[in-house]
Amino acid sequence: MVHQLPDMIEQQAPVPVGNPLIVIGGAEDKEREKTILRAFHQYAGAEQARILIIPTASSMPEILAEVYRLLFEQMGADWVRILNVSSRLEAQSPWVVDLVALSTGIFMTGGDQLRLANLLADTDMARKMQEEWQTGRLVIAGTSAGASAMGDSMISRGYSGESPKREMVELSVGLGILNNVIIDQHFHNRNRLPRLMTAIASRPYCTGIGIDENTAIILQRDGLLEVIGQGTVTIVDGSELTYNNVVDIPAHHPLSATNFRIHVMAQGLRYHLRERKLL
Amino acid sequence: MVHQLPDMIEQQAPVPVGNPLIVIGGAEDKEREKTILRAFHQYAGAEQARILIIPTASSMPEILAEVYRLLFEQMGADWVRILNVSSRLEAQSPWVVDLVALSTGIFMTGGDQLRLANLLADTDMARKMQEEWQTGRLVIAGTSAGASAMGDSMISRGYSGESPKREMVELSVGLGILNNVIIDQHFHNRNRLPRLMTAIASRPYCTGIGIDENTAIILQRDGLLEVIGQGTVTIVDGSELTYNNVVDIPAHHPLSATNFRIHVMAQGLRYHLRERKLL
Repeated sequence: MVHQLPDMIEQQAPVPVGNPLIVIGGAEDKEREKTILRAFHQYAGAEQARILIIPTASSMPEILAEVYRLLFEQMGADWVRILNVSSRLEAQSPWVVDLVALSTGIFMTGGDQLRLANLLADTDMARKMQEEWQTGRLVIAGTSAGASAMGDSMISRGYSGESPKREMVELSVGLGILNNVIIDQHFHNRNRLPRLMTAIASRPYCTGIGIDENTAIILQRDGLLEVIGQGTVTIVDGSELTYNNVVDIPAHHPLSATNFRIHVMAQGLRYHLRERKLL
Repeated sequence: MVHQLPDMIEQQAPVPVGNPLIVIGGAEDKEREKTILRAFHQYAGAEQARILIIPTASSMPEILAEVYRLLFEQMGADWVRILNVSSRLEAQSPWVVDLVALSTGIFMTGGDQLRLANLLADTDMARKMQEEWQTGRLVIAGTSAGASAMGDSMISRGYSGESPKREMVELSVGLGILNNVIIDQHFHNRNRLPRLMTAIASRPYCTGIGIDENTAIILQRDGLLEVIGQGTVTIVDGSELTYNNVVDIPAHHPLSATNFRIHVMAQGLRYHLRERKLL
């Protein structure tokens, strides 16, 4: 009966442990293996998952939400609901807070992170999401804008293709589900390493996490993250910066910031965010 | 007479010391202050300079050489000559070696670094250039392709906008005027940090030097470099790399390489290349 062993092993594939944040660099595969979306579905409880889709960042929320609803329903779930928050008042209402509490997985789509943060930051809904994640009852995933908005600081606007300077990146307040990080997405695809370095020079107490398309981090509550997907995740650690004149020079002048520690990590690599250490 | 002090200080501006390499990131200002080209002219001996222009990298060598000839003649020089090397045989001939020995400054233009290296690498001419620089008798400047070709390793082809992987950069042999460096140019302007990190993951004993447009390093023979110009210079130090799988995975797979040390330096900052240390 030895020939059955591979099958048995496959069936015994490790059950997702913990309730991580799943932070996705955008353009995740929705048609083939769906590795990242399947991981979210598994962590959220698989057949027992109660999934809430938040398409609020998007300019076409109905269409986008429907795409994800179909995907997660096909994977199997207890229920899949859509909540397109359209006002801060709505994000403060008890029924929205209750809906968050009922969910085992929340998925925030792409779009404009500024729209998402403006509607949700510092509301009862965002606080409930943070609390449910922190107490181990909720898995939260976000892709593209939905990824950027997870930090307490986020890049709301930025550009590329110039010498790093303060004006190339605009920082604002995110949802604060995760503290002391700045997340960037579509990372190498849109050449965003210079802007993330610039952001970290401005806030060296934050760790920069740049996530490529169809790539994600599975981030546990204790700060341990693992890379999954097709591309790479780039960690920009500014905790050892020596010279750094970003706040001393005009915003349109090229900046100097020395002694970044940078890690490029493909699938399977693990990093401890709090200890700033590779595993 | 105190009001004359500023003028006096200006007149006492430091005289260029030593015979550095001047490595330029391309698109240096040729119309306004001409800071970088003037620095080359000064280091080469100013009014006493004997300048040799090598436009061999370019696909329109005559026109480009003429532009630089006029510029340097306007600044004042003993003589300015043009040598468009068109064969390896020519680069081996005694009269070319003598012309190098007669020059106080050599300027290599932009174009295709592969063309320049294919014609000059490992010839008597290149060896004479290296020897004259090393013994303190020659200043060598190169811009764009002329900058890339200075190293013993150089990036001959490469692309951007994808997760770092080995196939995104092709390394070949440069002129070897400078050892254990990989120079990249038009650096942030063309988003080349990922490709330089990939190159350094492949050759971690080299230091990566990414130079923006209209920016240069003045590199002394002892390894001390100083940044001048409009943009930034990015040092990619791979000497402390921990995990690095670039040689273990297929060339089209995203690589992992952790613990790069990276410095972004604008005008005035100084770095010691041999000691891998900021000053």
